Amino acid sequence: MNNSDHLPIPNLPKLDLPKVVIIGGGFGGLKLAMSLRNSSFQVILLDKNNYHQFQPLFYQVATAGLEPSAISFPLRKIFHGASNMSFRMAEADRVDTTEKRIFTDIGYIDYDYLVLAMGADTNYFGAKNIEYYSSPMKTVSEALYIRNKIISNYERAITLPGIAERKSLMNMVIVGGGPTGVELAGAMAELRNNVFPKDYPELSFKNMKVVLIEAGPKLLAAMSEEAQNHALRYLQELGVEVLLATKVLDYDGKVVSIAGNEPIETQTLLWAAGIKPNRIEGFDPSVYAGNGRMLVNEYNQLDRCEGVFVLGDQCLLPGGNFPKGHPQVAQVAIQQAKNLSKNLFKQKKGQKMTPFRYKDLGSMATVGRKLAVVDLPFFKFQGLFAWLTWLFVHLMAILGVKNKVFIFLDWSWNYLNFDSSLRLLIKPKYVRASERKELIEEKSSSD
Amino acid sequence: MNNSDHLPIPNLPKLDLPKVVIIGGGFGGLKLAMSLRNSSFQVILLDKNNYHQFQPLFYQVATAGLEPSAISFPLRKIFHGASNMSFRMAEADRVDTTEKRIFTDIGYIDYDYLVLAMGADTNYFGAKNIEYYSSPMKTVSEALYIRNKIISNYERAITLPGIAERKSLMNMVIVGGGPTGVELAGAMAELRNNVFPKDYPELSFKNMKVVLIEAGPKLLAAMSEEAQNHALRYLQELGVEVLLATKVLDYDGKVVSIAGNEPIETQTLLWAAGIKPNRIEGFDPSVYAGNGRMLVNEYNQLDRCEGVFVLGDQCLLPGGNFPKGHPQVAQVAIQQAKNLSKNLFKQKKGQKMTPFRYKDLGSMATVGRKLAVVDLPFFKFQGLFAWLTWLFVHLMAILGVKNKVFIFLDWSWNYLNFDSSLRLLIKPKYVRASERKELIEEKSSSD
Repeated sequence: MNNSDHLPIPNLPKLDLPKVVIIGGGFGGLKLAMSLRNSSFQVILLDKNNYHQFQPLFYQVATAGLEPSAISFPLRKIFHGASNMSFRMAEADRVDTTEKRIFTDIGYIDYDYLVLAMGADTNYFGAKNIEYYSSPMKTVSEALYIRNKIISNYERAITLPGIAERKSLMNMVIVGGGPTGVELAGAMAELRNNVFPKDYPELSFKNMKVVLIEAGPKLLAAMSEEAQNHALRYLQELGVEVLLATKVLDYDGKVVSIAGNEPIETQTLLWAAGIKPNRIEGFDPSVYAGNGRMLVNEYNQLDRCEGVFVLGDQCLLPGGNFPKGHPQVAQVAIQQAKNLSKNLFKQKKGQKMTPFRYKDLGSMATVGRKLAVVDLPFFKFQGLFAWLTWLFVHLMAILGVKNKVFIFLDWSWNYLNFDSSLRLLIKPKYVRASERKELIEEKSSSD
Repeated sequence: MNNSDHLPIPNLPKLDLPKVVIIGGGFGGLKLAMSLRNSSFQVILLDKNNYHQFQPLFYQVATAGLEPSAISFPLRKIFHGASNMSFRMAEADRVDTTEKRIFTDIGYIDYDYLVLAMGADTNYFGAKNIEYYSSPMKTVSEALYIRNKIISNYERAITLPGIAERKSLMNMVIVGGGPTGVELAGAMAELRNNVFPKDYPELSFKNMKVVLIEAGPKLLAAMSEEAQNHALRYLQELGVEVLLATKVLDYDGKVVSIAGNEPIETQTLLWAAGIKPNRIEGFDPSVYAGNGRMLVNEYNQLDRCEGVFVLGDQCLLPGGNFPKGHPQVAQVAIQQAKNLSKNLFKQKKGQKMTPFRYKDLGSMATVGRKLAVVDLPFFKFQGLFAWLTWLFVHLMAILGVKNKVFIFLDWSWNYLNFDSSLRLLIKPKYVRASERKELIEEKSSSD
């Protein structure tokens, strides 16, 4: 608890409307906020960042295909001209469900409806060494960090005389055979095959490994067998070494130990093997399922907390077609947000709310140039047409006309050139004034 | 001196050609490298960054108009397919002009010709407080830092209840009335007039000051009186408070003290008031002019060091039309590089070298939308046509077709929308593994 806990968030418009506070501007929270634009609710959206992040394309930021700004959208922009909406960049710390009050790092706020849409973060399943040394990719900053790390590793590799020393800088290991892991592995293999040899003609890329490790027996566990088999074959054709039913044991920043396999030298271990829901204080432990998701009813409501709803990765509706909960994907969050926005209006009018039913629109993953797999409810296809479908669906799903245009141009460019020009190692020079002070002092003392 | 001093830079191709080592991939160094592509010289280009930075547009990165990647160009890309060229990301530490050897943080290298094109950095003229608290803008990272700082200040301002407390977060003070200062002040005023009021409808922008301070009696000292007067009027029309013949005395991070004026509350002091040449160890003090520039002859050669040339901001050719040296602008560096590349070929053939003659192509500065000033040698103009000229010239000067296309689109977009969508506060999550470790430890201890 800090000082600002004692004061309300200032400068919010005073409206005589029921207050909906939404925590998180991801797919669910943003969808809900947009549906309540210019409605008879006052909406306050809080997020740690001042932008929405389009997670499905993080892997392209990590592999220098897209700029962070192309897949991020300023949250304040969607609120232009809507007097019932406010955005604040803030971290929510704690809820008091009796007082109906939420405490944040910029003050507290009283709600009529509280919507938790806080998403999930990387799950290391308690492996501290892996958490310390590997690179997660659950934010656009983390994706950018991966890009910078890979580029610096290559710039460093070229300054080392022997192949043996260079190995750990050049090899890449990706853990997790879901869509993120598959897409990362494919994109890394394409960098190795098409881009790096031109940038680093002095290095031999025959020795560079791209390895994808999955603990389960199949890649893309949630998809069809056709999709799984094609994805595996596509990856192998691109030269990715795929290890299925294989467990990562440990990692020291230089060598990955793997059950039943030779250890692999790498300084780049990308961890895409699990997620765990984000949490906020103030709820009874009984609202949580074992995996940290919050148990909701079919209206996405927390049962014993009036006016509290949970969306997306953070919630779990037991029973029905999905006994273990709905898949933790964007579509579920978006559909839940749509349903909730209708239910808020219904509740206001004293009508009965509609229970949530998930409509599976299908799933897809891309492995590389002209290589993707698509499962629609009644139709499965792979290859070039799947790749074009993937491109189109993602382009349409991204927020903002400008982002669509720029991504389309970027993709066309990269497609035509077998190359992307984003291999820039733009390092933040300093982040806080205190760091500058150190720099200046260092400089003076060395002068 | 560190360990790698004792080893040569590894993995460089062994060619039987005279070796030209270029330090710095700015306008001068890059131009020279490009002119020697596929020639009978072996070229090694070293730069601290793996990209070329287009300095004239830094101010647009700082004011959220362009992405860093749009004005940065990967240096390795220009070397694709040229077997006589190598790039290394490295810092040059010291030269031994007798041995003709240069020492860097990745090893040493022996040269036949050494070309110093290291540019200049911000000059605070010894004012330590200003160096500590103000923000310079001599790299694309620094420009991005300014952008992030301004956005976080506004996100913070909106969380403060009183106008008095918000003042220092909202006011902006720019020091230096050269092109950079004028362009920054104009772009900041446009953000205040057109963009911020939409993003922060709860804040009042009447109280937000944009102040430009210049120590001399005129803005744009190097330009014509017409240009100076127009720039001043344009800035005033945009609502910039311009203080001429005014000295900044001190700055504590919150309040700027100004000679003969009320102090101004601001947490954003942008320092564009001076530059000083970068330096490398190993030269006799007698080669330096008082301002730190290296004294060269009309062939850009250091007189008593065989095979050493200096280009651009870093060098000074006394006498002639420019008794205080040529202006420290891109055109001088580019023309010197062109001349030097011809002279290198001439020297090789035993021909007489051509002395450098600067051809002034004119200068220009933009103040805002449809507002710019252009001085050509025989023709001066201002306003809309000057603005279009400015846009065209800068678009053509930027490296790479893709950068041109993307900047053109960005500019058209911003022009049509009075808005830019780059107001994203994408913070680097961590830079080194050691920082991650701290984060994880903090997290564990607070759990």
